[in-house]
Amino acid sequence: MTPLLILKIGGSVITDRRQERPFLFRSRLKRIAAEVAAASRSGGFRLLIIHGAGSFGHPIVQRTGINRGIANPAQRVAMGETQRLQTWLNAAVVRHLLREGLPAFPVQASASAVMEAGRLVSLDTAATRGLLDTGLIPVLCGVPAFDRKQGCSILSGDQIASYLFTHLGADSVLHGTNVRGVFTADPSRDPAAEFIPVVDLRNVREIPAGVGGSAVTDVTGGLRKKLEELLAAGAGGQIFNATVPGNVERALRGEVVGTKVLCAPRAGG
Amino acid sequence: MTPLLILKIGGSVITDRRQERPFLFRSRLKRIAAEVAAASRSGGFRLLIIHGAGSFGHPIVQRTGINRGIANPAQRVAMGETQRLQTWLNAAVVRHLLREGLPAFPVQASASAVMEAGRLVSLDTAATRGLLDTGLIPVLCGVPAFDRKQGCSILSGDQIASYLFTHLGADSVLHGTNVRGVFTADPSRDPAAEFIPVVDLRNVREIPAGVGGSAVTDVTGGLRKKLEELLAAGAGGQIFNATVPGNVERALRGEVVGTKVLCAPRAGG
Repeated sequence: MTPLLILKIGGSVITDRRQERPFLFRSRLKRIAAEVAAASRSGGFRLLIIHGAGSFGHPIVQRTGINRGIANPAQRVAMGETQRLQTWLNAAVVRHLLREGLPAFPVQASASAVMEAGRLVSLDTAATRGLLDTGLIPVLCGVPAFDRKQGCSILSGDQIASYLFTHLGADSVLHGTNVRGVFTADPSRDPAAEFIPVVDLRNVREIPAGVGGSAVTDVTGGLRKKLEELLAAGAGGQIFNATVPGNVERALRGEVVGTKVLCAPRAGG
Repeated sequence: MTPLLILKIGGSVITDRRQERPFLFRSRLKRIAAEVAAASRSGGFRLLIIHGAGSFGHPIVQRTGINRGIANPAQRVAMGETQRLQTWLNAAVVRHLLREGLPAFPVQASASAVMEAGRLVSLDTAATRGLLDTGLIPVLCGVPAFDRKQGCSILSGDQIASYLFTHLGADSVLHGTNVRGVFTADPSRDPAAEFIPVVDLRNVREIPAGVGGSAVTDVTGGLRKKLEELLAAGAGGQIFNATVPGNVERALRGEVVGTKVLCAPRAGG
């Protein structure tokens, strides 16, 4: 069957994370949509896209603490408002993809997700699978979701990527971030930081927690967490800089433009 | 347990169905949100809201024919665009509810729905149930959904209402439309049309198909279909005019302000 690629676009790529208010980088989103369209024209893969929340999610979650659960009526309203912002952002991302002629279809993970103490327990994939079979590109994003232990927790785009990799039998996860890939330390602070071309189960623990990813606090864990999610799911692929023009298209065409994430091939794969 | 009410707000109530382009009646939506908040303050019920698509859905569906399935690439893009419009509308409806202090949470039915030849086969309800248990108000809407026979079909708000009535064990469905209730003929065309105060399984067949509801073509079937959906699910409640100020609040408080839909009580209910 045609390979299934999961393209994750970080919230720090399409939104301004330094802003307290939701702010979308429209021109960057437009460029990325055009690159996805260009790569899709040559075909050869099925595609599912997941985007992060960026300034549409992290500030409100940190301000209201809903990632630690629902303890009062104001947090219920905050949970709804957080989802509303993601719903709006999801529609905006899909709009840009549609404008490039791509059959993108919004899919709200929290419409079926059940979490437990911050871990994803179940997510319905029948519709997503059906949409892929129909030739559409499902577009999901990180969301606040029902948690059976604490009422609410945050289902990150990274968790969704790993879950869908496993449950849809995807072939690769392409993690578009705002850094070149994985380094031995934060390259923006430490001039001795070295680029790591390949990460696998053997060297992932050498990567210091909190390294890379975004310069601002991330309620969903940052790059080390991303890598651990991927490797735990057996999801190979790459972590690359999606803010560099051309990289999304090159990654979709199979070129390694960042740090390669290497997993043992699945049984029968 | 506290009774669970399903409030359906028709697309013809919150959008201008005479428009070819999506047009939202913001002031009416604001008034309805305020009425829901007023009724909720006295408590006594849990609530789930479903809204129709109106001019955000029917024109594009009729123009592109996606309700009859996906036969070409342009229809795939149209399916995505139709969902994007509903996603945007859903966020707008939720925004008005949140502004009134209601813990409203968008829920996209097509994120988990599987249809077959236009009938809803399955819809995941674990998250919706969890959101209700957490004290939130799930807000769903009519959507284009994956259909395993034809790729796409339309999952109407009415179908969702009946399905959730059954699967969530709801107590009543309150159908807010733009007509007073059920008549023996179209009251806007036939001066002899008589108001029917109560509809049940015995007299539903006497109601002519195509009566009431909207004056414009409805891709999801109109009022007679609505009644048949309700009665087939054993869903009692009422059909009332939600464009009349005060009616939504009165209906939520248990007052019959339109045509009562009477079902035999469920076993054990």
